[in-house]
Amino acid sequence: MSRLEGACMFGQSGGPTSVINASAAGVIQEALKQECITAVYGAAHGIKGVLEEKFYDMSKEDPYELELLKTTPSSALGSVRYKLKNADEDETDYKRLLEVFKKYNIRYFFYNGGNDSMDTCNKVSKYMQKVGYECRIMGVPKTIDNDLWGTDHCPGYGSAAKYIATSFMEVYHDARVYDTGMVTILEVMGRNAGWLTAASALAAYKGNGPDLIYLPEIPFSIEKFLDDVNRVYKANGKVIVAVSEGCKDEQGRYIAEMGATLAKDSFGHAQLGGAASILANIVKERLGTKVRGIEFSLLQRCAAHIASLTDVNEAYMAGQMAVRNAVEGKTDYMVAFERPEGPEYKCNIKLINLTDVANTEKKIPLEWINKEGNGLTEDFIKYALPLIQGESKPVLEDGLPRFAKLKKVLATK
Amino acid sequence: MSRLEGACMFGQSGGPTSVINASAAGVIQEALKQECITAVYGAAHGIKGVLEEKFYDMSKEDPYELELLKTTPSSALGSVRYKLKNADEDETDYKRLLEVFKKYNIRYFFYNGGNDSMDTCNKVSKYMQKVGYECRIMGVPKTIDNDLWGTDHCPGYGSAAKYIATSFMEVYHDARVYDTGMVTILEVMGRNAGWLTAASALAAYKGNGPDLIYLPEIPFSIEKFLDDVNRVYKANGKVIVAVSEGCKDEQGRYIAEMGATLAKDSFGHAQLGGAASILANIVKERLGTKVRGIEFSLLQRCAAHIASLTDVNEAYMAGQMAVRNAVEGKTDYMVAFERPEGPEYKCNIKLINLTDVANTEKKIPLEWINKEGNGLTEDFIKYALPLIQGESKPVLEDGLPRFAKLKKVLATK
Repeated sequence: MSRLEGACMFGQSGGPTSVINASAAGVIQEALKQECITAVYGAAHGIKGVLEEKFYDMSKEDPYELELLKTTPSSALGSVRYKLKNADEDETDYKRLLEVFKKYNIRYFFYNGGNDSMDTCNKVSKYMQKVGYECRIMGVPKTIDNDLWGTDHCPGYGSAAKYIATSFMEVYHDARVYDTGMVTILEVMGRNAGWLTAASALAAYKGNGPDLIYLPEIPFSIEKFLDDVNRVYKANGKVIVAVSEGCKDEQGRYIAEMGATLAKDSFGHAQLGGAASILANIVKERLGTKVRGIEFSLLQRCAAHIASLTDVNEAYMAGQMAVRNAVEGKTDYMVAFERPEGPEYKCNIKLINLTDVANTEKKIPLEWINKEGNGLTEDFIKYALPLIQGESKPVLEDGLPRFAKLKKVLATK
Repeated sequence: MSRLEGACMFGQSGGPTSVINASAAGVIQEALKQECITAVYGAAHGIKGVLEEKFYDMSKEDPYELELLKTTPSSALGSVRYKLKNADEDETDYKRLLEVFKKYNIRYFFYNGGNDSMDTCNKVSKYMQKVGYECRIMGVPKTIDNDLWGTDHCPGYGSAAKYIATSFMEVYHDARVYDTGMVTILEVMGRNAGWLTAASALAAYKGNGPDLIYLPEIPFSIEKFLDDVNRVYKANGKVIVAVSEGCKDEQGRYIAEMGATLAKDSFGHAQLGGAASILANIVKERLGTKVRGIEFSLLQRCAAHIASLTDVNEAYMAGQMAVRNAVEGKTDYMVAFERPEGPEYKCNIKLINLTDVANTEKKIPLEWINKEGNGLTEDFIKYALPLIQGESKPVLEDGLPRFAKLKKVLATK
């Protein structure tokens, strides 16, 4: 272990979650405690803020507001979707980053995000190694999609899963108050992996969930879907469906595209909107039932009021442990979670190479999906249930959440 | 006060809310305690269950499950939308009701619902008076729409308002993470009255709410809307809009209808979906900004996990006081709330004639809407803020709500 003195830069990247700011609190509070860290900067809009030399001096923030970050949804410093080119094709951004790193003596770099963000983190790390600039670089995982490779699960997933499972249970009750038939289709986020949609199975496990669950891992067929819905409808009169926005058919077409094709084939009107509203239209036309499509939209990734305490604590720990490991000499890793075998849920920290995690997606194991391709097995319940335990309780004022208000004092150039 | 011995019938009617079952608990638990009440029946699907002689013996339920009704969303007994004909036009239903009432010696009738349900309750009450069948009949108010006449507010509104205000605050944070422009349009329920949409002003009061709020009380103009959005967009780069599903133009056309007309005029595709998605399409076409439409849909009326404790307690009290007043001899009333003047919020019970409340809608006072017709004044905040105070904490099992499970034992014929 070698002592390295210098400033630290932290950035948030990609789509926000309910707990990405808990990781920010973990990084910032821990970094402010470390003697070898001479300044703590928060980049405005991730890597873009670094390139534009726009970042905040986090020591200027009120400690109480930093504490409130733990229960404040979304990216408090601002996020970005910016893909760095390969350094051997275009070095411009890297040279600029090096310039900024040198100017502020940045020796610690923490980047919080999902697949694309770990790609950014990895590229910066490899470049700094190549040019021999000593900087400890650590990725901090974040994604409601839960699709990062090499970690048991991802911060952000547990809270979104808790929101989704709870909302399914509530809608389940609402959707069966009348003694008339009803099909309710709820659309959940996740373009390639079905983890979020699968969370609806937790509601089914409690007896108040979807009858049918469609994930992007299994090719989606409209005819199979209509058969499934019709069968459940005939048996129960009520059908609750969970569908991933990422469901695709054998040809890789999303439901919106299938809808557009069907529109030309057999319907008189264009099929607009998301998967839920398109499927709702198709069910109405083909089965003639009463039907409602619901999209959770942004709500599923920002509903901090029902965040999982387990998730909040782990997100914080991920940020904190990234700093501690870097101070102890580690670099070029992403902080990851591992779950030891045993009757009780535990979550340990491990480090995985940034190279391995960048751009690699983890999908739901096919053996966790039922044979019919429309539900989850008990293995999934065992996996997911511990992640939604405990209730995060945001501070309230006047019965409404009191979210962190940062001063965002720009670092002096 | 005269002592009246007999059975009691309770029914739920109209769209469900997060707290209608709290009123059910109030009626049922109180009725089970009253010595003069010989049996407590819960009608399956409201008045329809009475007509079909399908109702449950509530004394057969586990007291713990009845207690859980306080935090269980939706209508546990089943709801109905059934309009009784006028008795002087068609007496069939009334004769049948009288037959059932006599058969089971029903001397207390409690009906829980909104405008239409109070109409049912009123008609039943007047008929029983006309034919001289002694029965104490009380309406118990319920509606997220908050539009019942003669009561300061309605059970169900506070919880929906708390969900809406909190969700706006969360989406506000989510919608401004990137340094690119963004218009977010959120659609709230309420076909004729803007109370629910106005609840978003509570989020604005906390600094994290919509920039623009459009209510059904003010005629909606697409051009005015586009001007408003454009102005805020130019100033801030981010716009959050709250729009009621019930917004209509001067000619009384809903936004969906305006969209269809516009589609024929200037757009190449049909405008489907709700107000939010139609307005989102129009903003995209006309202003060229990034835009997202979100509909709260059923979630706003069943999100018991974030119910207002004030609302839960008042809903319970409304049910309880309906029974006590009936036992004390009152009949032909709806239980209503009044708020005494004073620095602290209080909620007292009063009784109003069923005749007065049936089919009368209460809208937002125009003087509570700003001059521009796109926001609320402080008077609304003063009115609504006390209604969302306190957190109802549903019992949890495995981190998910444990809702009431009723046995629903049919009454013996």
